Amino acid sequence: MGKKKFRPPKGFRDFPPDIMLLRKEVLSRIERVFQRYGFDPIETPILEYWEVMAGKYGEEAENKLMWRFKDPWSDRWYALRYDLTVPLARYLATHSETPLPFRRYHIGPVWRHEDPQRGRYREFYQCDVDIVGSPYPEADAEIINVIDSVMKEFNFSNYVIRLSDRRILKAILEIELGLKDSIPIYRAIDKLDKIGLNGVKGLLLKSGLSPDDVGKIIDIISIEGSNEEVLNTIESKYGSSKLVKESLTHLRGILEFVEDESHIKIDLSLVRGLDYYTGPIHETVVSKPKIGSLSGGGRYDDLLEMFLGKKVPATGGSIGVERLIDAGIELGVFKLSKKTITQVYVVVMNEEYMRYALDVVKALRNAGINTSFDVTRSKEEKQRKYAKKLNIPILIFIGDKEVSNNTVTIYVRERNERLEVKKESLIKEVKKHIP
Amino acid sequence: MGKKKFRPPKGFRDFPPDIMLLRKEVLSRIERVFQRYGFDPIETPILEYWEVMAGKYGEEAENKLMWRFKDPWSDRWYALRYDLTVPLARYLATHSETPLPFRRYHIGPVWRHEDPQRGRYREFYQCDVDIVGSPYPEADAEIINVIDSVMKEFNFSNYVIRLSDRRILKAILEIELGLKDSIPIYRAIDKLDKIGLNGVKGLLLKSGLSPDDVGKIIDIISIEGSNEEVLNTIESKYGSSKLVKESLTHLRGILEFVEDESHIKIDLSLVRGLDYYTGPIHETVVSKPKIGSLSGGGRYDDLLEMFLGKKVPATGGSIGVERLIDAGIELGVFKLSKKTITQVYVVVMNEEYMRYALDVVKALRNAGINTSFDVTRSKEEKQRKYAKKLNIPILIFIGDKEVSNNTVTIYVRERNERLEVKKESLIKEVKKHIP
Repeated sequence: MGKKKFRPPKGFRDFPPDIMLLRKEVLSRIERVFQRYGFDPIETPILEYWEVMAGKYGEEAENKLMWRFKDPWSDRWYALRYDLTVPLARYLATHSETPLPFRRYHIGPVWRHEDPQRGRYREFYQCDVDIVGSPYPEADAEIINVIDSVMKEFNFSNYVIRLSDRRILKAILEIELGLKDSIPIYRAIDKLDKIGLNGVKGLLLKSGLSPDDVGKIIDIISIEGSNEEVLNTIESKYGSSKLVKESLTHLRGILEFVEDESHIKIDLSLVRGLDYYTGPIHETVVSKPKIGSLSGGGRYDDLLEMFLGKKVPATGGSIGVERLIDAGIELGVFKLSKKTITQVYVVVMNEEYMRYALDVVKALRNAGINTSFDVTRSKEEKQRKYAKKLNIPILIFIGDKEVSNNTVTIYVRERNERLEVKKESLIKEVKKHIP
Repeated sequence: MGKKKFRPPKGFRDFPPDIMLLRKEVLSRIERVFQRYGFDPIETPILEYWEVMAGKYGEEAENKLMWRFKDPWSDRWYALRYDLTVPLARYLATHSETPLPFRRYHIGPVWRHEDPQRGRYREFYQCDVDIVGSPYPEADAEIINVIDSVMKEFNFSNYVIRLSDRRILKAILEIELGLKDSIPIYRAIDKLDKIGLNGVKGLLLKSGLSPDDVGKIIDIISIEGSNEEVLNTIESKYGSSKLVKESLTHLRGILEFVEDESHIKIDLSLVRGLDYYTGPIHETVVSKPKIGSLSGGGRYDDLLEMFLGKKVPATGGSIGVERLIDAGIELGVFKLSKKTITQVYVVVMNEEYMRYALDVVKALRNAGINTSFDVTRSKEEKQRKYAKKLNIPILIFIGDKEVSNNTVTIYVRERNERLEVKKESLIKEVKKHIP
C-alpha cells in the first residue's frame, strides 16, 4: 500500500539541521554563561534504578508522569530521569570525594509522560546549575544571577524572575491559619495565572475553607508593591512566626547579593510543583507568549540527606531550552536562518575534473572551511540547484576554463558576484566572503 | 548502617568534571571535523516505537542486546535506540522533504544490554556521519575520509582502517562454494583477532565444513600484500563472479577517492556484526591497547526501503567516543588534566568586603573569564585550600590593603607569583596569566 508513515513516538520530536543549528548555538551560549559563573559540567546516565527516583517528586510525578519500566532481561525496574536534580543527589552519594561547595552544571534531556501540548514535550532539555554545600542566600543569589545572565545573553527584556520562599505560605497556612492539608491550596494558587484571583477564590471556597481563611490567603498572594514593600507587609502581618522571619531574612539576603534586582519580583503566589524544595523558590516568566516558565528552581536542603545520610544544603535552577527557544522565536530573539552549516559547495562541471576538485575541497577543509561537493555524479545544473536549496553561501565552479587556467571561479550568493581566482589565492579569497 | 551506597545502574557511568572536560573537548573536535566535511547535525529521540527497531539488527541484538520495554501507562512497547542509523532511516520517512543527498551527523548516546567489560558499556556515545542518496564509491570514500581525519585530528598514528565488501565473502561462500548458511562462518571469522588463523580453522572444521572448503576460506581471509595486490588476487581467483567483480570495482573506486590510502587496509576477514550492511564495510583499529574497534561503518542500500517504500542508497560510519578516549588516554594522546574550567577564584579575606569582591567577580565574568568565589562564609585559609584542591590557576585576594588601596592582589599558581594591581587594570592583568 505504498509508503508507510513512520513517526517519532508521541510527544517526542526530531530536530532537523535548521532547528539543530539554532539549538546548538543557544545551548552553547547558555553553557558559556554557566562556565563564566564558575560551574563545571557533569553527566549522569539517562536511567536510574527505580528506587533512586521513588519518593522524591511527589505523587503525580510518580504515578503518572514518570517514565518507568521493568527491563524484561533482568526483571529490574528502571526509570528515565525526571529531572537532573535527583540524579545530582545520587551522583554525590556515588562520588563522595567531590569537594564542596560543588558548583556543577548539567545540560541534557529529561523525560515526562505528559500529554503533549504547546511548549510541553515528553522529552525536553534542561540546563541545570546547582550549588551544593551552602545554606546561605549568596548561593541562591548566584543561581538567580546565572539565570538572569542567560536571559540577558539573549537580549530578552520583558521577563520577570518570580521569587518566593516556600516556608512563608507554609507557615501562614499551617501555623497561623491552622490548616492541615495545604496541598489543594497550593494547587489552587498555582492556577492563578490561568484563572485569575477570583477563580482561585472560587476554588478555595469550594474546597471547604472558611471565607475568612480564603480572604487571608487571597490577601497574601495579592500583596502589591516593590519587593521591599511586599516583604515589609508580610513582616508586619506574620513576622511573629519564626519561620516567616527566617524566610524574610533569607529573601532579603538574596536581594542584597543579586547583581541586578530589576527583573526580580517577590511573589507569594509562586508555588512550583516539586516536592523537594524547602526554602526559596523562583521561576522566570515572559509576559508573552503564554508558554509557561522558562526557568524554575529553588533550595532543597533535605534531598541530599536521603542519599548521603547527612544533611547537605543545596540550591539550584533549571532553564528549559525548548521553551526559551520557542519564546525567543516568537519574540524575534532567535531566527531559524540557516539550513546548513556548510559554507562552500564545489560544483564539478565535468566528472573528469574530479581529481582537481578534490584537491580544492581538501585545501578548503584543511583551512577549516566547511565544504561539500556532489557525490551523485549529477549534472552541473542539479548541483547548483541543490546548493541553492540549502542556501549555501559560496559556490566554487570547476570547469574547462578553470582547469586550463589553474584557477577556480568563486560565486558569492549574497552579492550575486562571480570571480575567477588563482588556485593559490583560493583560501584567502573565500575567507573574505564567508558570512 | 550509616550511609547507603547509591550507584548508577550496572554498565552505566557518571562523568565527573575532569572526564567531562576531556569528553567535551574530544566531542567538539570530532564535530568540527564532521562540519568541515559538509555534514549537518540532526537529533532524534532516545526512544523509538518497538516496531521501528524490530527486524533491523539481527537476532542477537533483538533478543538479547536491545533495551526494550512496555510502558506501563500506555501498554505500548518502546526501545531505546540501539544505534543512530535506524533512527536516521525512520527520520527520513518522517521528513520526506529532506533534500538528497543528505550529509548528516548525529552525536549522542545509544544503549545496548551488554555484559559490561573494558571498553564496553550499556550506555555509550556514537558519533555518526552518513550520506544518504548516493550509490557511488565517492560517498563511501567521504565517510572514510572523515573517520581518517578524526584519527589525524587527535594525532593517532598506529591505526588501521580495515576495509572490505560484504558481497565478496558472501559470493565466494554461497555462489562459489555452494554453502547455504554463512552466518556461523562469519561468526568464526569474526573471532580471528582473538583466536588466530588456526583457531578459526578449528571452528570451521568443527562446524562440519569439508577440509577443502575450510582451506579455501582460510586462503581468502589470509591473503597478504598491498591493497592492489589483495584486490588482484581476489580477482584472479573469483573474478568470474559478477558480484565479486562489482565489489572489486567499488573498492577500487573508494581507494581512488580517499584523501590518504596509507592507513587503509583491504582485509577480507572483516565481518561487522550488523545485519543491514549490503556492500563496503570498514572499521578502525589500533594495534594497542586491545580495546575493539574505534569506528565502524559501511553501506546499507536496503535499510531505507523498509521505511520509505523505495530504494535509497546510503553509507555511513560511526566513531565510538568512549573507546577513542580510553585508547587515547592509554596512548598518551589525551590527558585528564583539568579538574575545573574555572580560571579565577576570588578569595574574600573579610566578609565586610563582599560587596567589593562581587564587583570584581562581576567585572571578570563580564570579560568572559570563568570566575568563582566562596559562598559558604569560610575563613581565608579554607578558601585557599579549596582553590588549590581544584587547581584553579589564578587567585585574587581582597583584604584590608586591597580595599583601602582600591586594588586587588593577583596570585598566579604556576609561577607562585603575587602582584597587587589597580582595580582598573584587573582584566588586562588577569588575561595575561590565563593559561
